[in-house]
Amino acid sequence: MLAPGRAGSPAESATGDRAFLRALLDAEAALTRAQASLGLAPTEATDAVTAAADAARFDVRDLALRARGGGNPVIPLVADLTAAVEAVDTTYAPYVHRGATSQDVMDTAAMLVAARTLDLVLADLTRTERALARLAREHRDTVMPGRTLTQHAVPTTFGLKAAGWRSLVLDARDRVQAVRERLPAQLGGAAGTLAAFTAYGTPDTGALVEAYAGELGLAAPVLPWHTLRTPVADLAGALAFTAGALGKAATDVLTLARTEIHELSEGTGGGSSAMPHKANPVRSTLVAAAARRAPQLAATLYGSLAAEDERPAGAWHAEWEPLRDLLRLVGGAARDTAELTEGLRVHADAMRAHLDLTHGLIVSERLSAELAPVLGRARAKELLTRAARRATAENRPLVELLTEEPELKDSALKDLDLVALTDPTRYTGSAGALTDRALERS
Amino acid sequence: MLAPGRAGSPAESATGDRAFLRALLDAEAALTRAQASLGLAPTEATDAVTAAADAARFDVRDLALRARGGGNPVIPLVADLTAAVEAVDTTYAPYVHRGATSQDVMDTAAMLVAARTLDLVLADLTRTERALARLAREHRDTVMPGRTLTQHAVPTTFGLKAAGWRSLVLDARDRVQAVRERLPAQLGGAAGTLAAFTAYGTPDTGALVEAYAGELGLAAPVLPWHTLRTPVADLAGALAFTAGALGKAATDVLTLARTEIHELSEGTGGGSSAMPHKANPVRSTLVAAAARRAPQLAATLYGSLAAEDERPAGAWHAEWEPLRDLLRLVGGAARDTAELTEGLRVHADAMRAHLDLTHGLIVSERLSAELAPVLGRARAKELLTRAARRATAENRPLVELLTEEPELKDSALKDLDLVALTDPTRYTGSAGALTDRALERS
Amino acid sequence: MLAPGRAGSPAESATGDRAFLRALLDAEAALTRAQASLGLAPTEATDAVTAAADAARFDVRDLALRARGGGNPVIPLVADLTAAVEAVDTTYAPYVHRGATSQDVMDTAAMLVAARTLDLVLADLTRTERALARLAREHRDTVMPGRTLTQHAVPTTFGLKAAGWRSLVLDARDRVQAVRERLPAQLGGAAGTLAAFTAYGTPDTGALVEAYAGELGLAAPVLPWHTLRTPVADLAGALAFTAGALGKAATDVLTLARTEIHELSEGTGGGSSAMPHKANPVRSTLVAAAARRAPQLAATLYGSLAAEDERPAGAWHAEWEPLRDLLRLVGGAARDTAELTEGLRVHADAMRAHLDLTHGLIVSERLSAELAPVLGRARAKELLTRAARRATAENRPLVELLTEEPELKDSALKDLDLVALTDPTRYTGSAGALTDRALERS
Amino acid sequence: MLAPGRAGSPAESATGDRAFLRALLDAEAALTRAQASLGLAPTEATDAVTAAADAARFDVRDLALRARGGGNPVIPLVADLTAAVEAVDTTYAPYVHRGATSQDVMDTAAMLVAARTLDLVLADLTRTERALARLAREHRDTVMPGRTLTQHAVPTTFGLKAAGWRSLVLDARDRVQAVRERLPAQLGGAAGTLAAFTAYGTPDTGALVEAYAGELGLAAPVLPWHTLRTPVADLAGALAFTAGALGKAATDVLTLARTEIHELSEGTGGGSSAMPHKANPVRSTLVAAAARRAPQLAATLYGSLAAEDERPAGAWHAEWEPLRDLLRLVGGAARDTAELTEGLRVHADAMRAHLDLTHGLIVSERLSAELAPVLGRARAKELLTRAARRATAENRPLVELLTEEPELKDSALKDLDLVALTDPTRYTGSAGALTDRALERS
Repeated sequence: MLAPGRAGSPAESATGDRAFLRALLDAEAALTRAQASLGLAPTEATDAVTAAADAARFDVRDLALRARGGGNPVIPLVADLTAAVEAVDTTYAPYVHRGATSQDVMDTAAMLVAARTLDLVLADLTRTERALARLAREHRDTVMPGRTLTQHAVPTTFGLKAAGWRSLVLDARDRVQAVRERLPAQLGGAAGTLAAFTAYGTPDTGALVEAYAGELGLAAPVLPWHTLRTPVADLAGALAFTAGALGKAATDVLTLARTEIHELSEGTGGGSSAMPHKANPVRSTLVAAAARRAPQLAATLYGSLAAEDERPAGAWHAEWEPLRDLLRLVGGAARDTAELTEGLRVHADAMRAHLDLTHGLIVSERLSAELAPVLGRARAKELLTRAARRATAENRPLVELLTEEPELKDSALKDLDLVALTDPTRYTGSAGALTDRALERS
Repeated sequence: MLAPGRAGSPAESATGDRAFLRALLDAEAALTRAQASLGLAPTEATDAVTAAADAARFDVRDLALRARGGGNPVIPLVADLTAAVEAVDTTYAPYVHRGATSQDVMDTAAMLVAARTLDLVLADLTRTERALARLAREHRDTVMPGRTLTQHAVPTTFGLKAAGWRSLVLDARDRVQAVRERLPAQLGGAAGTLAAFTAYGTPDTGALVEAYAGELGLAAPVLPWHTLRTPVADLAGALAFTAGALGKAATDVLTLARTEIHELSEGTGGGSSAMPHKANPVRSTLVAAAARRAPQLAATLYGSLAAEDERPAGAWHAEWEPLRDLLRLVGGAARDTAELTEGLRVHADAMRAHLDLTHGLIVSERLSAELAPVLGRARAKELLTRAARRATAENRPLVELLTEEPELKDSALKDLDLVALTDPTRYTGSAGALTDRALERS
Repeated sequence: MLAPGRAGSPAESATGDRAFLRALLDAEAALTRAQASLGLAPTEATDAVTAAADAARFDVRDLALRARGGGNPVIPLVADLTAAVEAVDTTYAPYVHRGATSQDVMDTAAMLVAARTLDLVLADLTRTERALARLAREHRDTVMPGRTLTQHAVPTTFGLKAAGWRSLVLDARDRVQAVRERLPAQLGGAAGTLAAFTAYGTPDTGALVEAYAGELGLAAPVLPWHTLRTPVADLAGALAFTAGALGKAATDVLTLARTEIHELSEGTGGGSSAMPHKANPVRSTLVAAAARRAPQLAATLYGSLAAEDERPAGAWHAEWEPLRDLLRLVGGAARDTAELTEGLRVHADAMRAHLDLTHGLIVSERLSAELAPVLGRARAKELLTRAARRATAENRPLVELLTEEPELKDSALKDLDLVALTDPTRYTGSAGALTDRALERS
Repeated sequence: MLAPGRAGSPAESATGDRAFLRALLDAEAALTRAQASLGLAPTEATDAVTAAADAARFDVRDLALRARGGGNPVIPLVADLTAAVEAVDTTYAPYVHRGATSQDVMDTAAMLVAARTLDLVLADLTRTERALARLAREHRDTVMPGRTLTQHAVPTTFGLKAAGWRSLVLDARDRVQAVRERLPAQLGGAAGTLAAFTAYGTPDTGALVEAYAGELGLAAPVLPWHTLRTPVADLAGALAFTAGALGKAATDVLTLARTEIHELSEGTGGGSSAMPHKANPVRSTLVAAAARRAPQLAATLYGSLAAEDERPAGAWHAEWEPLRDLLRLVGGAARDTAELTEGLRVHADAMRAHLDLTHGLIVSERLSAELAPVLGRARAKELLTRAARRATAENRPLVELLTEEPELKDSALKDLDLVALTDPTRYTGSAGALTDRALERS
């Protein structure tokens, strides 16, 4: 109820307790199957475990409560799964969780949940980049004020802005995709030596790890990574990056949707019961909120890299909820940004109108470039500063004031086309070319 | 399922979605009651709203999903509550949420949930400080190695260690208590001016705020605090402090419970199915994990102080889940630390035995103090360093080697009671007095 | 060069390497003086150590490099200080650092530096609250749009906004002041038992700690706090709070100084060489930057509460730079906010003009309150929504459209003073009273 | 003086104010050279600017103080650089900083500093991985207790542990290397459109960006990245990862160097003046401290991704110091870890001795695997638990107790080689093979 940003999103279901339970059971079943595939367990055991590993039969809440005893939910889960197998045929119970440690199953389940959630995130990033590509193309030449430190600087285009957002989204996609492909299964046994598997007669533990990972569609790691937490840290980085990348677009929308600016508005703003005129930028708000939280969640995960021994007392346990929170937060933000960008309304007329707010001073940089070579830097600056002050004080356009300047009437500058030079729509530099170039990336 | 540290704890129930729903409804009902108490609403309206504000009638999941539209759950909740009142008698529907804004109700509910959870935390801190007071008294003179930078330094006592933990717990209690007492209700209307209440005829909005806060057992704020987030930041600080204070004790237990050290063990360690000898320090592990997470959650809340306008687009929304997470995390950690300290087993024999691990060098500081005035600092240091090296290399007690030193046989030092001087149990300085003094605090 | 927010500020000098060196030497000299005051050292030793403890004689860079060996700068400092005393008279060298451990001196120095910096911060917070009190009084009735989620909501006043900023500044002052008064000296010896002091003949170590703290103007702690880090955590909380409190005002200024809004501007904006019209809100920018960094620095300090043993291997060392950074950051931000608020320019005309941007819809809440009792909630809402849509579409004032509504011409509502009801300057609720009340706090 | 972890390190010099000044001047000179290379400036201007851009002529402190005015040091630097060029020949002054904005130069300088520091980090990571490869090979078969949740679990080898540390270091190297190669120059002009360059007659701004980046040895970006902060976020991720990766090894050394464990010790431990027996693990301590700080610094940088407009008021300024701090911290930690691993002393005898601390229970997992198939899981567990309890209580080896068990004397199990089965050095599973495989990576 406190999470409208993710409520009802696919990422929410993909990261819920039931999704984790399913992933834990998937890991257990895959382990038995992998052992059977190498002749280390009878095929019937595989069938028995796979049949018993049905999430619908397990009580999530009861498992959560019993997890307190040993500090993780795999211990009670294995007990229940074993009992479920035994209930059918006691012969196959020994093949449940055979040789594994709790962390093997927890970590593998976390990677499965991450993989499934990242696939959803990637789909929403693709929707977003397409919406942004469309906006960038459509508004390639829609001129608007460029703003720095909250003030108008020189003109830019909305196309370039949208192309910039898109380039961040593509950066996020590339980082998420790369991490997604490397997500590994976990299999190491009690202290990461795979010794129990050897004790149970596994001739080649490497082949077992590969078979297990293969069953799950995850990568096979070179080493057990119980305390080598590269996969978790990589997820932290990619997810914090994505939250921030989406947060950039949301922050810009929030600024440009302000009542006084109104250059953008959300397709479907949130209403207010008492104030019918309000159309709150709700999607951007929720994405901005996610961007505020993600970095600190990622920090906790990076902090867990420094994990002592073969399994740490705290660093590992501190990962579980922050990793899930990050996945959910980014999953929700990706959905919201897709909706936001697909429905975004661009008010080109407001953009155009604002270019005149500074009475033409938004192109003073250009005038400097034209006047300085002739008048010298110092005199050009002096002249422009004087004109700027008058434009503001007298509320008159800069072009008008400049035509009154005696210095600009002399031989060398008299042919300057001041109207063209002070037209903000003609001072967009390489904005168009940059937009085109950025759109080439796919 | 990913949170064994809080599973089944009172703090978990006190912070769940249903608890939040109840708090939201409590806030709504209190607002109507407060208005009635000032003659601004009929008593019947109070009855109607209070009757309708029954958490059992509302569908948490449905509210959560509808919260997406406007970005917070109060909007659909007010719609449902109004409908519930109307279903009985349409007359009183206008008195639902009259004059308030969503944030008034959300913030008030968050403070109610915080108040209820902090009361549970305080009770567990009290259990903990009592258990620690008992341990400190019982082990006032139980000597053990003091350790700095992982190495034995000079002796200390377990009593002083337990008294130190307790002093942190009392610091936490004081900070939580102070924040608890100041938790304010929120009432400001759309932009914090209380204007709608005036429009509905409230002559003295100050009296209304007081009545509303009084109904809820919360403090009445001087100003609406929609974007003056002192209460949330204070919660962040007190909760991060508490997590760290409990984390200190947990970290020490984890160190001292190591197989090689075994000076402490948890009352009921977590077992391992495959390794019957393992008794994992599960309570300390979960508390240590909480201490790793809390600071970053608090950072997000401190970050939300910089909230723009009269209601921010993101900073407020970014508070909800981290605040709840902090409350839960600390609630669970307080319960776990109470159990940990109440059940802690102290192995005084192991502590005593370890004092000899450095062959008596653990008291070299004391010998320096005795020898330096006679031999001079330089010679004393040289002599001790030589003896230290031999003690380690030859695996012999320092006292033995010192008696062989010719310099110590000469007139000025020959009467030194080397046995007493090298007895680590006689070099605990003011440990006893400090313990006594710390225990005076209540 | 990367820190314009603190460059040249008093807090910068108060936290520099030389200031730390001076504080370290102050701690050493105070320790000898305290021992002499109890008859544990000759007065001449006090003179000798105090004379030698002259920061100008020490080479900061050289100490920093030699600090690498033992991991802290006190070890080489004590060596140099001892040598300096010996150079004059070898008799008194043994009284240097007698009985203390490096952490005693480091922690005490950190508290001295903190105390000196907080005094500067407090002075700037006082300047700020005074400037804000003046602004709140002057603009008690300056009406401006209240904004929520970036959109105009209902009117508010700049007086109330300034009073709100001030209340946060006073909250910060109270928290800083409380922490300042409690900052303790540190004295515990090698493992916090004060044993070496006993070995050197101190009859009452409690008296020694009091004398030492008294010499330094710091509080005397009940227990050595080598790993009971309440003072550092309290500093973290108070400083993160202050950064956020100042950040709130800065964030609002940044919003209201936008080119399109221009309701506020900084007294002396930062210029731009190429764009003479730009007057960047530099002070607010630097304060906003500090508010973004402080929470994470505080998180590191809270994280160090969980420090193992009698001196931790890492948690302590991780505090030094973040604590200094926080002190500097907040010291700089306090100076910048004092300058910002003292020079702030308020454009009441712009505020007034913006109230009309929504064609009168900014008071729709009030109209709801008036119409609903007569027309019923549903019809009132329908009527207002229709009028709102027309006002926006036809760019006409709401009052005009309402007078055309047949429903408002009927008997019950015909006497409504629509002009007054739609005047935003008459819908500020309790803004004035709240401002007055907030200004009573001192 | 508060940073022994970086004092005197190459990374410290590479990130100091003078190094930043040099990088700023390198960026300015490269811009003029790039323009000259395209015929947009006379060669003489290049010579004049390059000659004037000599860091030795500039006053860092003075620039820092003047940076306050506009909020960044480039503004005063350009003024001084222009004056220096003018002092020789006024003709070329206009070519200083021509067309650029302050952020172009600041960001480019930050990337230059990052590139130079990362090269140092990479060299130290290589030293470290080589030292660890040697340790892993030498100790491929050095058996030691595997530890989970602080307790002995099953045996492992120090070779596998060292190989694991090395794999993290290689992961760090790969991430740092990848980021290093992508570090881009920044060139966008006032609002990222490159408009001023066009105004100064640049026909192809893309070619100019390429020439500029080429001069500096940085990558040429597709878009100006004033508010598309991928390069900074990528640095944050790679540096936080590296700190954590090094922190893992440091944390393990700190644990294994404890007085009671003493399986590892640092080559040159830090001494203590009063306690000659102490050899503190100083290098590990400093690395562990860095690992505690880095994640929160990275969080601030990730937080700055959400930067509004074409240049943000705060988010950009909040990056400067944290980025430098991260570079320094990781630079120092990389040096310390190289020294640590090159000098690490491994006490194989202590490792061997500790394997017997649990009286043989460290191999109970293996016995389960052997006994369960014959006795059934339940009876096997019961038998082992009973034997485990007796072993601990009676302080006798497990093998002895098992030979007394009647069940183990019966036909099916009587030929079990209990001595071999309970030998911890023969229960290392795939540790050797995993080590070999991990060492193949280069």
